[in-house]
Amino acid sequence: MITLALDAMGGDSGPEAVVKGAYIANHHYKIPCKFLLFGDESKIIPILKKYPQILKKSKIIHTDCFIASDMKPSLALRKGRDSSLGLAIFSVKNGESHAVVSSGNTGAYMALSKIIFGMIEGFDRPAIPAIIPNMYGHSIVLDLGANIESSLKHLKQFAIMGRAMSTTLLNKKNPTVALLNIGTEFIKGPPILQDSYTEFNNSFEKNFLGFVENIMKTHADVIVTDGFCGNLVLKSVEGTAEFINKTIKNEFSKNLFSKIAALISLPLFKKLKNKLDPRLYNGAPFLGLKQTAVKSHGSSDALGFANAINVAYQMRNFPSNLNSNII
Amino acid sequence: MITLALDAMGGDSGPEAVVKGAYIANHHYKIPCKFLLFGDESKIIPILKKYPQILKKSKIIHTDCFIASDMKPSLALRKGRDSSLGLAIFSVKNGESHAVVSSGNTGAYMALSKIIFGMIEGFDRPAIPAIIPNMYGHSIVLDLGANIESSLKHLKQFAIMGRAMSTTLLNKKNPTVALLNIGTEFIKGPPILQDSYTEFNNSFEKNFLGFVENIMKTHADVIVTDGFCGNLVLKSVEGTAEFINKTIKNEFSKNLFSKIAALISLPLFKKLKNKLDPRLYNGAPFLGLKQTAVKSHGSSDALGFANAINVAYQMRNFPSNLNSNII
Repeated sequence: MITLALDAMGGDSGPEAVVKGAYIANHHYKIPCKFLLFGDESKIIPILKKYPQILKKSKIIHTDCFIASDMKPSLALRKGRDSSLGLAIFSVKNGESHAVVSSGNTGAYMALSKIIFGMIEGFDRPAIPAIIPNMYGHSIVLDLGANIESSLKHLKQFAIMGRAMSTTLLNKKNPTVALLNIGTEFIKGPPILQDSYTEFNNSFEKNFLGFVENIMKTHADVIVTDGFCGNLVLKSVEGTAEFINKTIKNEFSKNLFSKIAALISLPLFKKLKNKLDPRLYNGAPFLGLKQTAVKSHGSSDALGFANAINVAYQMRNFPSNLNSNII
Repeated sequence: MITLALDAMGGDSGPEAVVKGAYIANHHYKIPCKFLLFGDESKIIPILKKYPQILKKSKIIHTDCFIASDMKPSLALRKGRDSSLGLAIFSVKNGESHAVVSSGNTGAYMALSKIIFGMIEGFDRPAIPAIIPNMYGHSIVLDLGANIESSLKHLKQFAIMGRAMSTTLLNKKNPTVALLNIGTEFIKGPPILQDSYTEFNNSFEKNFLGFVENIMKTHADVIVTDGFCGNLVLKSVEGTAEFINKTIKNEFSKNLFSKIAALISLPLFKKLKNKLDPRLYNGAPFLGLKQTAVKSHGSSDALGFANAINVAYQMRNFPSNLNSNII
């Protein structure tokens, strides 16, 4: 039986989203696993009592120490080892669980998991990927981390990690990879992208699709960019989707006619919403670590957390897969 | 009477979109201007005959020389002066017209207009802005040009140009400005953005709103970024809007029920489409030039071209406004 370590104190919704998320993961997604719940037992127990099925499969590891959402990574490294997050990470390190999930402070989580797990040889720093739906399916886009500058070596590491994740999580056999740029022509972009083009061509051969400029219109399984551009692009995609969603809602609530139209169209919009619901894409593994740590969005609810649990379950053996993928 | 120089041979739709665009600009937008049409008269005359109102207000300047959409700027500089685009630019330089509009080759257009018009002192290179609708109205985002790296000095020039454009085109009295970054906190981003934060704070004082990470959720009238990130963000916004549009269309055409729902919702979607129609935002002036040149999208139709004509008309005195805005 697989055991997952859950930081019950991270994120805006705390233990409520975590315990209910575990319930959804177990009972709706049918993920066969047990849980270690790290945090304040006086807060966790009342919620667990509402989900007796999860109560049976869980063990609480009590701690009064939590990492605040604005704690600096350097401070978390000094003071955070006995926190709910730190203990959850150590439980994986010690073999008591197979992977850890937290909605807590990203910087602290990344720093602690990097120091406790260590990096796989050949990878310099953890990368954060996102799965983004597009015209033809989905792409894994990375890096979305706080790594602001990326050298050719880092971009290549991102490509290797992204391809391994595509195989492990999305069952792609020979994932294709592309580089994000402001045009698709070979001559476009700054020198680092032109050098990367040559390097990717040599390393990934026919699986390298060249430059891509529109992440919504590509067949590439993996899209590589640096952490700064990746962040900007992800926020633009999310912002635009939210803007259109609000504009549609406004139009549909203007008068009686539009409200009737909304009522009739509702089932169709539900389908659209289900397809684009960011909660369904929640759960970003820190790639390159020797063991599996999954970051759930700070504002994620139970459904979002359940998806992060699913990612942790599917990705529990990812580090050994990645190890065998190093070029 | 204002005279606008139109390159009739640029863009995918050629003279058809240009002449019909002039008609829409004159008769729907009520822009009081005459036109100089540059290009192959054997192609322009038959179309002009369909629009007798425009025929009366136009003069054709015939040339057999055109700039191909893939011609390198360096070649355009050597060979393009007698082209429809080159002659149109010269007509502004010589005082025969007040501004030029073309849907042709961006690189060639920018190079020719820069060399023929020259830059206003204090500005190093032309910037390309876009007007992007958002939750609270519109923002001018720049630079979207091919300028890949931007120094602090350039970012500040973009801010000054963007603010002047906001006043000239959108009638904003004290336009606010923000810097695009991966977070809104002061400490976020690479050194150049942190230095720019300090510089913008000193120069624009209370009109500087700091960092913005979501261009869809900002009150800033002007959003400053370098040409690489600006391009990536614009393409992500356009790509996401197109993706959602297609997904909605697919859902609404699946079966009889959804088709009925579509029929009923149609007037609402038309409103949404009108609000987000990229043709309505067509027409990007090259900012920083001593005279006014407006770039229309290569694939723009007559409605798009009419909007570019409108921008050229509104922005015809922009260079002198900009001159007085230099800090």
